[in-house]
Order: sequence, then structure tokens, then C-alpha cells
Amino acid sequence: MNDVASLKSWILDLDLPLPSLRNNTADGERLMEAIGGRLGGRPVRAELEVVSRLPSLLRETGYRVRCTLFEDRDRWILLDVGDPRQPSSALGLAVDLGTTRVSLRLVDLCACGTVAERTIDNPQVRVGPDILTRIHHAERDGGGELQTLIVEALNREIKTLTAVAGHNAADVHAVSLAGNTAMTHLLLGLDCRWMIREPYIPVVNRPPVMRAAELGIEAHPAARIFVFPNVGSYFGGDLIAGIFHSGLHRREETAILVDVGTNAEVVLGNRDWLMACAGAAGPALEGGVTRFGMAAAEGVIDRVRWDEEKGDFAWHTIGDQPPRGICGSGLIDLAAVLFRAGMMDIRGKLVPSRCGARLKMIDDVAHLVVAWAEETASGEDLMIAQADIDSLIRSKAAMYTILETITMTMGMNLNELPAFFVAGTFGVFIDPVSAVTIGMLPDLPPERFIPLGNSSLEGATRLLTVPGSLAEIDRIRDGITYLELNVNQAFMNRFSAAKFLPHTNRALFPSVRVPE
Amino acid sequence: MNDVASLKSWILDLDLPLPSLRNNTADGERLMEAIGGRLGGRPVRAELEVVSRLPSLLRETGYRVRCTLFEDRDRWILLDVGDPRQPSSALGLAVDLGTTRVSLRLVDLCACGTVAERTIDNPQVRVGPDILTRIHHAERDGGGELQTLIVEALNREIKTLTAVAGHNAADVHAVSLAGNTAMTHLLLGLDCRWMIREPYIPVVNRPPVMRAAELGIEAHPAARIFVFPNVGSYFGGDLIAGIFHSGLHRREETAILVDVGTNAEVVLGNRDWLMACAGAAGPALEGGVTRFGMAAAEGVIDRVRWDEEKGDFAWHTIGDQPPRGICGSGLIDLAAVLFRAGMMDIRGKLVPSRCGARLKMIDDVAHLVVAWAEETASGEDLMIAQADIDSLIRSKAAMYTILETITMTMGMNLNELPAFFVAGTFGVFIDPVSAVTIGMLPDLPPERFIPLGNSSLEGATRLLTVPGSLAEIDRIRDGITYLELNVNQAFMNRFSAAKFLPHTNRALFPSVRVPE
Repeated sequence: MNDVASLKSWILDLDLPLPSLRNNTADGERLMEAIGGRLGGRPVRAELEVVSRLPSLLRETGYRVRCTLFEDRDRWILLDVGDPRQPSSALGLAVDLGTTRVSLRLVDLCACGTVAERTIDNPQVRVGPDILTRIHHAERDGGGELQTLIVEALNREIKTLTAVAGHNAADVHAVSLAGNTAMTHLLLGLDCRWMIREPYIPVVNRPPVMRAAELGIEAHPAARIFVFPNVGSYFGGDLIAGIFHSGLHRREETAILVDVGTNAEVVLGNRDWLMACAGAAGPALEGGVTRFGMAAAEGVIDRVRWDEEKGDFAWHTIGDQPPRGICGSGLIDLAAVLFRAGMMDIRGKLVPSRCGARLKMIDDVAHLVVAWAEETASGEDLMIAQADIDSLIRSKAAMYTILETITMTMGMNLNELPAFFVAGTFGVFIDPVSAVTIGMLPDLPPERFIPLGNSSLEGATRLLTVPGSLAEIDRIRDGITYLELNVNQAFMNRFSAAKFLPHTNRALFPSVRVPE
Repeated sequence: MNDVASLKSWILDLDLPLPSLRNNTADGERLMEAIGGRLGGRPVRAELEVVSRLPSLLRETGYRVRCTLFEDRDRWILLDVGDPRQPSSALGLAVDLGTTRVSLRLVDLCACGTVAERTIDNPQVRVGPDILTRIHHAERDGGGELQTLIVEALNREIKTLTAVAGHNAADVHAVSLAGNTAMTHLLLGLDCRWMIREPYIPVVNRPPVMRAAELGIEAHPAARIFVFPNVGSYFGGDLIAGIFHSGLHRREETAILVDVGTNAEVVLGNRDWLMACAGAAGPALEGGVTRFGMAAAEGVIDRVRWDEEKGDFAWHTIGDQPPRGICGSGLIDLAAVLFRAGMMDIRGKLVPSRCGARLKMIDDVAHLVVAWAEETASGEDLMIAQADIDSLIRSKAAMYTILETITMTMGMNLNELPAFFVAGTFGVFIDPVSAVTIGMLPDLPPERFIPLGNSSLEGATRLLTVPGSLAEIDRIRDGITYLELNVNQAFMNRFSAAKFLPHTNRALFPSVRVPE
């Protein structure tokens, strides 16, 4: 019997055979055998504390029992037993542990639905906004402060989220956590110093399943934590979770998955093979580049379109508030609009004759007024400089070159991909038509771009709700071939060609009409 | 590659391949792969704490590492890592957890030799001398007091034993413990109440391997404890350990193993099958029966022989001190001597005409003076009453009947057994010729009786020193067929026939010359 197919969740109700002089197996083994009979395959191990509660529970319920299981690699762990006549209160916590933001989702392990959800700032930002600063900090203090910061935040959020749902922290039986390799190492209290020095060795690729309590996480005493495995220092569990969520590894047709942050991480593959690479895409898309650049939030320009009637571009802000900045998707829209309107040329330079009053020279540098002082939250012009656009162009060129390189390596054509998964906030907010217009993404029909949302959180959730996931996750990890991006002359040539809008080779972007 | 054959102990020194850009596996997986390459088969799991020490250790030793492993049922656990240039200090503790006495042996896990050894009284005796009293006590208080008593005693002894050997408690990486089902349940804090009520169900047959710290045992933080599995409430891990030590289950020829205490526990079998049973043998052999009966100790009569010169019997005491009591082996010798001298008849009754001055009537009950007042420690006559002898006769009859029943069930003849293992103090002290003379043991040549000593402690030690033992122990446990002694008319008839010296059927004891 397949141990996974027969399980709909990690909660299993069982009727045990009654003991007799002829059948005098111990209570513990009686239950383990019944579980084993349902699951087959892997052995079942129980917490002693759980076993110790069996004698009275079984005799009270007439040998009917509800089991809360957790799937480790080579065994099932029996985390808890209860009376099946009571409603189940077993919860799981899925976590996307991002460098900047941490997303948490409380899941009902029985019904497999979301109970509550929240996103918070990663409190480690206090120590340093980026990974490198944090690793250096951990080298100095042994990592204790950074570990404490994140563990305390998790504990606070577990309390808050469970309280909101009318539960308490002790109902959380399982934690599934995905993050990049540095973030997970810092959570686990592992030394990151060798990750940033050649040959870039993490302490662990596949963190062991352990008791959440071992990390100081306050949940059910037997609660286990699963931390998604990484492929290396620069390809983390967040991406493994993303692949897992996307289903890339289950598809017959080859598809691509892109996760854009400071690095662009790309996975190409199908059910037979997975090829991954990562490269610096620049901070332009994270809102870190322009004076007014920011992450998506209230009052941030997230969309820009051309208003034919007015003969000018028009923007939209999140929450319809007066604009106070512009995020990655807004910037890409803006660049596409400027390019189509001829206000920006194929090199990405602002065209004074077409920009009119929107072009302002400040210290001899061209600036474009995106929103006029009277429209903005601050009462000042919201502008982007030519340098900001240059940075965006470099980012988009880097992104395209990475995509081109990985598909070329596999002898494939970017424009023939049947599906292009885009992970993260970037995937949700970006208008693929704009991204294609500026040559950041390949010229595929818009419907082939599939936004995945927070694929790391979704992957972590899937682990908690689909029994049998762990083996699948390990298969993904083990199946990935990591392509070391060799920044040689050929790569630089492709990068230079991609620095034009949409590209020096216009045949690659047949759908993009280049203005006169 | 066989994972067991290649391991001489749980300590494994390894040279790891150096990391490079081409081989950038994490430190943890690098080590796990090397261990897996040596052991094959089962997966290797490491403590996170151990993994966390790898980065600095590996870079300091040039990727040479000493691993301390522990064998769980379905995995190897990496308990500790160290510098192979340092001497190993990893110790294991073998424990025979008896109802009355607790024997402890400290073992060097690398050299696989004994480091120190000690036997103490089970401190639970304070609560109650026998199992039943303790179980009732645990029912009232939840078992906490009894658990605390034994755990504290173990901690004291670990401190003492390690200090004697120039080590400390944190060097103890593994505990291997064998005891009867009640004693192990009380140690584990498990509810014993259903063990003593029909249908006699223990909480667990196969206690999980767990961290010693979970039981409050103070040792290395990652130290694991293995508790020998039981077959049921009345066939405990001490006996499994005994079989494991005797090698009964590895022999081609069928042999028998007997462990005598309040119960006589008997296992008959070979490498293909094992049949077990247990029955009340009475307290006569534990020194609990006569006024002067006691366990083996200084000044206790342990041997009695016939002195032809004096025409009287002569005794020997442990430590050659003035006698103050008589132990089981002394009592059996005495009975044999009395029987051979005609001082006791075939019914076990003292013969006044042959006992002479040694026979005294007290309150109309015949007593035999074993040692005269002027010889004894107390200055009083050391006597046994006819009732004491009657009790011994019942014990020996019960023992023989159990042996007869189990061999008859398998269609075998007791007198044809090629080997007869006798476990425990009983086996060490008893003179098989005396036991045969009174018909307690079958009439086999003396050399076929093989004393095993503390086979429970030896079995626990073997687990620590012979990798691969756990699977063998589970095979023993799973292979045992338990014969429920059906005390029916046929059994009672055999018992009555065995109440004579040596037996009503003299043909069963051809070597015993019955006096006129």
C-alpha cells in the first residue's frame, strides 16, 4: 500500500483491535502497527510522552484514536494522540523567511486550509539590511543575536496568529520554513562565514528535521520543524519551495521559473531535469535604486499607462493615495510607456524633444517628473533620474542575459517556452507586456507568464498539507544541476546586446513595435 | 557494502574530500556522505549541535574527523565529532536494572573494553521490595517518585564511575539498559497498572531510542539511551539481553537458557526458533525463604559438601567468615548432601535416625542445625526448618516441571540438550551436580551447564561494543513464541512427580544414586 496516497492529511483516525490474552501486544506497538498498516513503508516512531498517554486514552475511547503525524525523511513521527470524538486543533505554521520580510501562514493540519496569515519585517534588518552585513555581524558575536531576533519574532507571531484563530501556541504541531541559505543558517545558529568565502561552503544542505523547541520555538512540545534544503550558498530553500509550489518538476514540457530580487534566480526544467542559475540583477527592481524607489505599499506607484486622450502617461498608486514613490512594476511600466511614446530611445536615454516640461535638468543631469508637486504626498516633484533608468536597463539586460544563457545551455529557444513562472511580489505586480516591451522578459504571449505569488510560502504550506511532500522536495533538490554563470566574453557580448530596448536583435521581440 | 561488518566500534575516523568550487557540498552533507560510504544502507542523521561544530573543526583538522555514532533501528545517529589526533574519550554505560540490584558497567566505546563496574541496591526497594508493591505505589503517585529514585541513582553512579576512570559524565554518549518490563516502565515513567490486570498489557514493547536527557539522565547532551525491548509484561528486556549474550539464537543445535529468580524464566531454541515460558519457582532460591536464608554475601554459606573423614557435612562461607546465613546454592548443596547421606528421604523429609544431634524439634517442628552456635557469627545455632526444605522441594519441582513442559511441547528430551545456559548469580554459584541430585535440573553431564553470570548486563554491554546488535536484538524479540503455562491436570501431575528426590521416575536421573 502506498503510504502517501492513502493519507489526505497528517491527521489519521484509527480504530485499534482490542487487547486480549491472545493479542497482548503493548498499547504503543498496537497503535504503531495500526498506523503502519495504513501507511506501509517507512517505520513509525513515537515520542515517549505520546506513548505514555496511550493507556488511559485508549481505555477511555474504546481504542479509537486520532493521530497527528509528521513526515520525516525515513520515518513517520507520531507527534500527538487524541480523542477522535473531539474536533482537531492541530495546526501547522508555514514560514517564508525572507531577508527583508517574513511571511507566516497558520494552517489547519486536518482540514488543510489557511487559518490566519501575516507578513512582518524581518527583525534582523535592525542589525543589517543585507545578508552580507548580517553574516559579518554573526561572525563577530557568534550569531546569537540574529538567531534570537528571528526566533523571538516567530514566537510573537505564533502567539498572535494562534490567538486570532482562537487557538494557542501549543496547537502548533509542525513548522515548515523556507528561506535562503543564509537566513536559514542564521535561524539554525549555524556559522555562515564559509558561505561568503571561496569555495562558498554552507554548513548544511539538508537541515535535519528537529524539535521546534530545540531552536527555542514555542509550540507543541513535540512539534517538529522542517527547514527546506538548499543546493548551496546561493541557491536556497526558498527557491526549492518555489519550484515545489510551481510544479515545474512535475511537468512534461520544459518551463522556466524566475524569482527576482537583488539576484535573479532562474530554474529551467521539467519532470526529467532541472537546471538552475542565479545572477546579480541589480537592485533596480526592489525599489532600492531611485530616490523615490520603494517596495509596494500604500501611495506607491505600481502601474503606469499611456493616456491617449491626454497624450501623456498616467499612473496609479496602491490604495489610490497621493504618490510618494514608485515600485519595480511601476518603473517597468514607466520605462515601457516612455519607450513606446518615443520619450526614451533604444539606449534608454530620455529624449528631451519628446519629454517636454517633464524633463528637468538638475546639476546637468536629466530627470523625468513622474508626478508633479501638486499631485504628490510630499508636495515635491516625484522624479527619476537618467541614472535610475540606466540602472533599470542594466538590470533588465542582466535578467535577459541570464535567461538567454540558461536556455542556450540547454539548446532551447526562450521564445518557445510554454510556461514562464514568475515568483514573488515582482510576479504579482509586473505587467508582462511592459517587461517584454523593454526586453526584460522574452517575447512570449502574455498568458504564458504565470505569477506565483509568494511561492516560497506556498511551497512551505504545501509541505504541511500534502503528505509525501518531503521525498518530492528532496528529489527536487537532488535533481538540480547548478549552472555556474561564467561571466566570459560571450556572456558580456550577450549582455551588451541586451542593453538596448528591447534588444539589438529585434527579431527576438517581434511583438514590440519600436517607435521612430 | 555491509554497514555492520565494516565497523569495529561506534567510533569511526574519516578523511573527507576537500571542498572546492567543483565540490561545494555543505560540511554536514560532506561528512554524512563519507559516513554513508563507509556504512551503506541506513541513513545517517546528525544532531544540529554536532553539525554546527563542523565548520571550525574540519578546517582545523584538514577535514579529518572522528565520529561517535549510535545505531538506531532505521538510522545511524551522529552523536559527536572530534579531532582524531586526540585520544577518544567516548564512553557507554551498560545497565542491568534489576528489581533488587542494579549493575552498571562503563565501557570504552572505542576500545570496547570495560572501564569500571559497580553494583548497587535498587533505591526503589525503599518504596517496596517487590514489583507489585511498586506498581501499586506508582498508581497512587503517578510513578514520579520511583522514576526519580532510579534516575538519581543512575546519575550518582555515572558520576562515580566516570570519576573513578578519570572521565566525566559528559563523556557518556550511550546508555544501554536491560531490565524486566516493570522496571523499565518505571524508569520511563510509564503507567504499569495494565500490566498486572488481565490481559496484562504493557505500555510499550519496544521503547524508542531517545535522548538520555529526556529521562533526566545526566550525560553527553546528545547521548542516547537504548532500553531493551520486552515480549510482554512477564518477559522482559533483561531476558532478551540474556539470550543475546548467550548466543542461543545463533546456534544450530537447540539449547536451553534458564534465569532463576522469583520466577523461573526459560528459553528453548536455536537459530531458527525460540520458545519461552516463565513460571513461579518460589522464593527458595533467592534466599527469601528460611530464617537464615539470604543472598550471597560475606559470611553466607554458599557451598556444602560431605566430609568423608568426619562422616558429617562441611560448609564454606563467602569470605571464610563465621556463618550468618545460607544462600540458594548452599541450600541446594545442603539438600543434595542430606539426600545422599540418607539424612533426608526421597520426599525431602529429614530422617531423625540419620540426622542425630543435628535434628532439633522446636515447637514440634523438625529443624536441622547447619552450623553450631559456637561456629556462627551470632553465637546461635544456624538452622533450617523442615518447612524451608519443603519450600525448596516445591521450587525445584516447579523448575523441573517448567523445563519438562517446554521441552515436551517441542517434542524434545531434556536429557539430550547439548547446552544448558544458567543465567544470573544462581548460575554462577550453583553446583550443577547438587541441582541434578535433588532433581532440580535435568541429568546432564556437568560440563553442559554453562553459567552466564549477569547475562542481562553482558547483553547490554554487547550492544555497546558490537555494531549491528540492535537488529539482532529485535530479531530475538520478534522471534520468541511465548508459551502460556497452562496449569492444568497434566501439569499438576508432572509437578507432583517432580516433588520427589530426584523424581518419581528414576530413569530420568540415571546418574543419581538413590540411598537406601
